[in-house]
Amino acid sequence: MSIRIGLIGAGIMGADHARILSLEIPGVTLQQICDADAARARSVAETSGARDVGTNPLALIADKSIDAVLIASPDHTHADLTKACIAQGKPVLCEKPLSPDSTECLDVIAAEVKSGRRLVQIGFMRRFDPAYVEMKQTLAKGAIGPALMMHNFHRNVSAPASFTGQMSITNSAPHEFDIARFMLDADYESISVFCPEFRDSGKTGAPVFMVLKTRTGQLVNVEINNNAAYGYDVRGELVGEKGSVFLRSPINSELHVNLQTITTYPADWRPRFAEAYRLQNCAWVKSIETGHPAGASAWDGYAASLVAEAGIASLALGGEVKISSAAKPSLY
Amino acid sequence: MSIRIGLIGAGIMGADHARILSLEIPGVTLQQICDADAARARSVAETSGARDVGTNPLALIADKSIDAVLIASPDHTHADLTKACIAQGKPVLCEKPLSPDSTECLDVIAAEVKSGRRLVQIGFMRRFDPAYVEMKQTLAKGAIGPALMMHNFHRNVSAPASFTGQMSITNSAPHEFDIARFMLDADYESISVFCPEFRDSGKTGAPVFMVLKTRTGQLVNVEINNNAAYGYDVRGELVGEKGSVFLRSPINSELHVNLQTITTYPADWRPRFAEAYRLQNCAWVKSIETGHPAGASAWDGYAASLVAEAGIASLALGGEVKISSAAKPSLY
Amino acid sequence: MSIRIGLIGAGIMGADHARILSLEIPGVTLQQICDADAARARSVAETSGARDVGTNPLALIADKSIDAVLIASPDHTHADLTKACIAQGKPVLCEKPLSPDSTECLDVIAAEVKSGRRLVQIGFMRRFDPAYVEMKQTLAKGAIGPALMMHNFHRNVSAPASFTGQMSITNSAPHEFDIARFMLDADYESISVFCPEFRDSGKTGAPVFMVLKTRTGQLVNVEINNNAAYGYDVRGELVGEKGSVFLRSPINSELHVNLQTITTYPADWRPRFAEAYRLQNCAWVKSIETGHPAGASAWDGYAASLVAEAGIASLALGGEVKISSAAKPSLY
Amino acid sequence: MSIRIGLIGAGIMGADHARILSLEIPGVTLQQICDADAARARSVAETSGARDVGTNPLALIADKSIDAVLIASPDHTHADLTKACIAQGKPVLCEKPLSPDSTECLDVIAAEVKSGRRLVQIGFMRRFDPAYVEMKQTLAKGAIGPALMMHNFHRNVSAPASFTGQMSITNSAPHEFDIARFMLDADYESISVFCPEFRDSGKTGAPVFMVLKTRTGQLVNVEINNNAAYGYDVRGELVGEKGSVFLRSPINSELHVNLQTITTYPADWRPRFAEAYRLQNCAWVKSIETGHPAGASAWDGYAASLVAEAGIASLALGGEVKISSAAKPSLY
Repeated sequence: MSIRIGLIGAGIMGADHARILSLEIPGVTLQQICDADAARARSVAETSGARDVGTNPLALIADKSIDAVLIASPDHTHADLTKACIAQGKPVLCEKPLSPDSTECLDVIAAEVKSGRRLVQIGFMRRFDPAYVEMKQTLAKGAIGPALMMHNFHRNVSAPASFTGQMSITNSAPHEFDIARFMLDADYESISVFCPEFRDSGKTGAPVFMVLKTRTGQLVNVEINNNAAYGYDVRGELVGEKGSVFLRSPINSELHVNLQTITTYPADWRPRFAEAYRLQNCAWVKSIETGHPAGASAWDGYAASLVAEAGIASLALGGEVKISSAAKPSLY
Repeated sequence: MSIRIGLIGAGIMGADHARILSLEIPGVTLQQICDADAARARSVAETSGARDVGTNPLALIADKSIDAVLIASPDHTHADLTKACIAQGKPVLCEKPLSPDSTECLDVIAAEVKSGRRLVQIGFMRRFDPAYVEMKQTLAKGAIGPALMMHNFHRNVSAPASFTGQMSITNSAPHEFDIARFMLDADYESISVFCPEFRDSGKTGAPVFMVLKTRTGQLVNVEINNNAAYGYDVRGELVGEKGSVFLRSPINSELHVNLQTITTYPADWRPRFAEAYRLQNCAWVKSIETGHPAGASAWDGYAASLVAEAGIASLALGGEVKISSAAKPSLY
Repeated sequence: MSIRIGLIGAGIMGADHARILSLEIPGVTLQQICDADAARARSVAETSGARDVGTNPLALIADKSIDAVLIASPDHTHADLTKACIAQGKPVLCEKPLSPDSTECLDVIAAEVKSGRRLVQIGFMRRFDPAYVEMKQTLAKGAIGPALMMHNFHRNVSAPASFTGQMSITNSAPHEFDIARFMLDADYESISVFCPEFRDSGKTGAPVFMVLKTRTGQLVNVEINNNAAYGYDVRGELVGEKGSVFLRSPINSELHVNLQTITTYPADWRPRFAEAYRLQNCAWVKSIETGHPAGASAWDGYAASLVAEAGIASLALGGEVKISSAAKPSLY
Repeated sequence: MSIRIGLIGAGIMGADHARILSLEIPGVTLQQICDADAARARSVAETSGARDVGTNPLALIADKSIDAVLIASPDHTHADLTKACIAQGKPVLCEKPLSPDSTECLDVIAAEVKSGRRLVQIGFMRRFDPAYVEMKQTLAKGAIGPALMMHNFHRNVSAPASFTGQMSITNSAPHEFDIARFMLDADYESISVFCPEFRDSGKTGAPVFMVLKTRTGQLVNVEINNNAAYGYDVRGELVGEKGSVFLRSPINSELHVNLQTITTYPADWRPRFAEAYRLQNCAWVKSIETGHPAGASAWDGYAASLVAEAGIASLALGGEVKISSAAKPSLY
């Protein structure tokens, strides 16, 4: 009765998903690892004990021995592969973004709507992170009153020289756009993008600071700083009318040496969100068993891409850019 | 050889200054407390052991038995009283703002420049707060690389029903404008003001969120939320290209009860900045003895008022408002 | 190829192990839940999807369809059931204590030694807790120099009226005895027990404070306070000659309301050690697959019981009680 | 009306008191600095603006131009100089210990009792430290129920090679003995001393761990580790029957760099207890003005020395040593 999963993409994210599925999630069989680079697929298959490897994602999706598909291939392939899964009636967990292009997201949504049932989950794993979950529960209990503002900070150690402010908005910020929208249960009305300037001419990975308004009057601020140097650090504060909640990051121990108290940061997102990925994938597998969808939907993927597009416009032109959304189908 | 000080204003701030001068600062004599309300002046004089009371501030300033003046009267009186001190050649510590009107600030500056020496210190006491001082030292040592952004949060428990967004900008934000400008050693180029909206219709004291750019490309973000409910809380983060520094607030102990770990917030600014006021007033007294000015100058007071005026324009009209400053006289 | 596990005991610990094995550990089949109370066994079997239920633990151990056994039955049954597993040549994870009686522990050890291979793992799950693991790594790296002292605090919300100081030593302290011995890689030489006295006559669950010396000169202090009221709280500090390490407990978020900053404690040990149990059981399953033992051995179980016995003597008679151990067989 | 103070001792503590009296305490005149080393006295006098210097402490005490005396000379001189002050009827703030010898403390007490009024304050400045004060208030409010245990940790960066375990008990521990006795409002019944052993043969400054019982059944644990290497660190936890309170040390900012979050420790006690010394000396000056004694009395000094003597006996002989006190005169 094990669910047979095909995994498309054997890069960093794909390898991590293979590890999670094989070591942390009961009730699944890793049926095939598919990657354009066959050697890479084999390497991940060996480590994770996957039964088979392949290089053709559409063949994987069509394969009768595969019940469900996890897409961790390059971003531009996500929408088409997701549509192929829908066409086969197979549940799919697609890494974010569903597509960098909101129109392409709408195509996927149209296909899913036409299929008549929810098959697509988007990999916005933060919705399963215990810290964000606790924050949302605190808001729901009324402990801080109605939400007024949310402050979000995303910092990475370093970004390649080619990393632009635009990429900060399209690649990193969607996690922030989604989690704040999820937290506030509110859609965005506008976005204003600001860019601080590095003094150190050698620095790359342009930081951006964004101010978003929701349709219900809240402010959502997002700093994306992929060249923050000091560590992988995601911070968040939800400000309510009666109080405030801060996320806390996992810290195991503190060291006291050399006139200092020291705690450590991870170098990338994996330790910070290890539990979120485990719980997300668990919920996905359970949703396949039960038929009740979990996590972020294709519509949520569209909403994030829509904001990113407006952000790019604000980055280019300056000032506040309005966000106008398609009508939400009743499936979501 | 004690310095004889005249204190104008016996309200909350004035009473606090009387307490600090009498209990915490050696080398001074509290010569007179002056307030339009004679009973209030007497009450503060009794508590602090001041020698005399009065109701005429100009008489106090002209009094030969008074060496220096501390102005803690209502905001709109600050500029004229400061000019009267300059006219008498007496050192003056004037509570912020120097004037809500930047043109009036320039009048004071013109008078001080004409007098040929620095007599005016503005009560931006945060420049003496050990947390901000340590932050500035960390930046100066190069520990975080060049400064890139500064995030500032000012939260009060509650504001009266009459408190407007405009007052958030003119009354509370100047402390933030000044300390960020001091920290970054940079002047502002523009300001954009955003307003989140309270759900709870009974809430007053409109919060504002501001994004400022400096002439050297840094971003300074300022949240003013005078109806934050949960406590008096000033937070600050200085983001550099190699790392980041956060302010920490004074915490004496932590309590563990009822499945909770609890630390406490003060209900107003006095406990948070008690040490800053003590050190500021100490530095002022020492500057009178040595003749070397300390702390914020009249020019710094002007700079803060200028930003507040631009902030009010952005609040009214929306969008980014440019800030253009007069030329800085060589005295500063 | 799934490992078929029989679980003996369907109380709180047994139910939790059933949940962990069914939801968090791939590669296992929960073959049978056995409990003297058949209804309780059925209830846990339903929740966890176990295939079968039983009431006879020896029959479970002898059952050919069961590959390995997890013992979570009452403490006094542990040693006999573990010996039965050894007799069947089956790997066994036995909840602590192996036996409250160190002589009985030696019986188990004799049986395991005779069997010629390591079959027994004791449920000292803290050895897998990420905080203790990080502490041990920090020591191993030399970051704090050689270990000098370890301070350990175990606090529970409340204990039943019947809970005695003796039970603090035999039931709660073994986790502390084991983890400090594991951390320091050193055996104990002596123990001195001290008892503070409750003022509130209604309080039960006598707290104890113990000072242990290791054979290599370190001090290990252990506070057991099972009626601490405020929360389930395990604290630990490892003091080295060049620095110190503190454990940190998992905190997801912090709440700011009513002039307070608040983080929460769990009401019992499960949230605190959820990850430790998951990783322990994972390691156990992996050790069955590989044949390489993991975690605490029967010998470690003996060592903990030996210290508890000396602690009881010190509690009864006062003063320092020496600890003398049997010789360690080469199997361990 | 300024109080004229004579300061005996111009070493580290004396110089610090001179600084505090001249820069932080209004209403006093630093009349004379007295030290056997005249050059050292002059140096401190110049820095602090003291009016005069001397080398004869008894002459200082007898000097009619001196109203009150602060003793910061070597420990063995404290009792005789304090008695000389009592003989002159002059208020005296004597650095701890009153005497290392409890019999000598009783001599001072006899003299003070004979004088018929409280003249002696002992420099147990922690009683004025805001963290300990808040802890005591929390206990007084009943927030944690009756006190059950107090854990105290005193750590210094390094101690000279000549520093023995005995000196840990006589020189450092009295601060802990006094503050716990003050916190619990309870006298000690017994003390048991334990000594961990350094591995690193080059390490000096023997650490000790002490378990004290109060006459009302509480436990007080004290770690003295003057060679802790990592920083000057004083920790304290007061465990009650309903909750617990921890001291927090002053932290101004936190730095995030190199995959680390860092806060700093001071290298010695002065930054940690700067506010405690200021408030203590303020309270002393006020007590001279009002005639109402403040802070620790000669009796408190005796109590601390008595415990230290018992601690030395336990260190030498092992085991628990009973503490028996003289009867407390009604003056205290």
